[in-house]
Amino acid sequence: MSDASPSTLADLTAMALRFRDERDWAQFHTPKDVALSLTLEAAELLEIMQWRDGPALDEHLRAEREHVGQELSDILSWVLILAHDQGIDLGAAFAAKLEHNAAKYPVEKARGVARKYDRL
Amino acid sequence: MSDASPSTLADLTAMALRFRDERDWAQFHTPKDVALSLTLEAAELLEIMQWRDGPALDEHLRAEREHVGQELSDILSWVLILAHDQGIDLGAAFAAKLEHNAAKYPVEKARGVARKYDRL
Amino acid sequence: MSDASPSTLADLTAMALRFRDERDWAQFHTPKDVALSLTLEAAELLEIMQWRDGPALDEHLRAEREHVGQELSDILSWVLILAHDQGIDLGAAFAAKLEHNAAKYPVEKARGVARKYDRL
Amino acid sequence: MSDASPSTLADLTAMALRFRDERDWAQFHTPKDVALSLTLEAAELLEIMQWRDGPALDEHLRAEREHVGQELSDILSWVLILAHDQGIDLGAAFAAKLEHNAAKYPVEKARGVARKYDRL
Repeated sequence: MSDASPSTLADLTAMALRFRDERDWAQFHTPKDVALSLTLEAAELLEIMQWRDGPALDEHLRAEREHVGQELSDILSWVLILAHDQGIDLGAAFAAKLEHNAAKYPVEKARGVARKYDRL
Repeated sequence: MSDASPSTLADLTAMALRFRDERDWAQFHTPKDVALSLTLEAAELLEIMQWRDGPALDEHLRAEREHVGQELSDILSWVLILAHDQGIDLGAAFAAKLEHNAAKYPVEKARGVARKYDRL
Repeated sequence: MSDASPSTLADLTAMALRFRDERDWAQFHTPKDVALSLTLEAAELLEIMQWRDGPALDEHLRAEREHVGQELSDILSWVLILAHDQGIDLGAAFAAKLEHNAAKYPVEKARGVARKYDRL
Repeated sequence: MSDASPSTLADLTAMALRFRDERDWAQFHTPKDVALSLTLEAAELLEIMQWRDGPALDEHLRAEREHVGQELSDILSWVLILAHDQGIDLGAAFAAKLEHNAAKYPVEKARGVARKYDRL
């Protein structure tokens, strides 16, 4: 690993794929099991939030910051792998989805309102 | 939006935060609800895989590639937002987690084997 | 359907299986897809809780009581189907798991404490 | 515990509530954290299915039958607790949801077809 942290989707994806290829694990990565694995990591993140709210949760999250970073990294890794395996340009998809969401949640209607688009 | 797709974590995060701030939605983003929302998006991704396997799933995923990209983008957006809100350097966390995983799954033991590290 | 609501695991399971068999759906019910479907229904339940807490959530849940009951029923249905398909006596498993949990969380240690058993 | 396994929703619910009350845990059971906990248990069930399919998964599930029964029991326990806390008659809700699903998936259209109701 170089001294600097990876900062681009391309670099992060290359790292995740290199880890996988060194272990010959692509053979296990059906898209269903990759999405399933992503869901399991999301649950591990959610578990850190269990039974606490407000300031007690904030304090807990500060104590668990490294743990939170690990779970977010695992989730990100599966996102990058699935995007790669499905031939998806994640940066382009991200920009397109934000445009899509901006149309669903126009600023003038959605400002300060936490409701689904079909109830705005 | 500029012509080029965003390619760095910093650019993607800035886009997600701008979308949020334009709508004044940070007030709703407790860490628990952000992690919950990430889990919901993971489930939406998983739903695309439901009831199909093998070539039938592959074909379905090709037809749904834009949809898959949308769900991956939603997940990525929550990852970036939670990392930002918790003061986590996601690139550094990602590199550290891969090193951590490399120690748990040494190449010589893990090669071609889909088992948890405690059963290697 | 008879006038009375089903009240035993056996009756509820029979209803879920009859629904499935009338549609010839057992062929699609791999254990992985059943567990996946259960997860999707859990996410639909979780979604009802999104963006609200405390009294605002309580009020929302009262307004959505029928909806909550529907999601709980869908989850229950998958639990019953998977138990059936795997040859599991769910009532016996439930009693055994409570005994198991009672040993992990002895009353004198766990009383009033929301911590995992390994941190009691 | 009596010799016989519990077989009614009422008995199962009473057992889950007694376990909770002995530990004074109702104070932690906000509906959001109960639904979150249910989701975590669903993920633990899903994890048993990870990286295997077909006969290899079937064999694994036979070896893990007790484990599967434990996860199903944990999920069931949260279903019963949330139904109780929200004043939902789960048996009645279950019967009503099956009727609802029967209308969405009429036998003549849904027979042998694994598609969402809006694509039948």
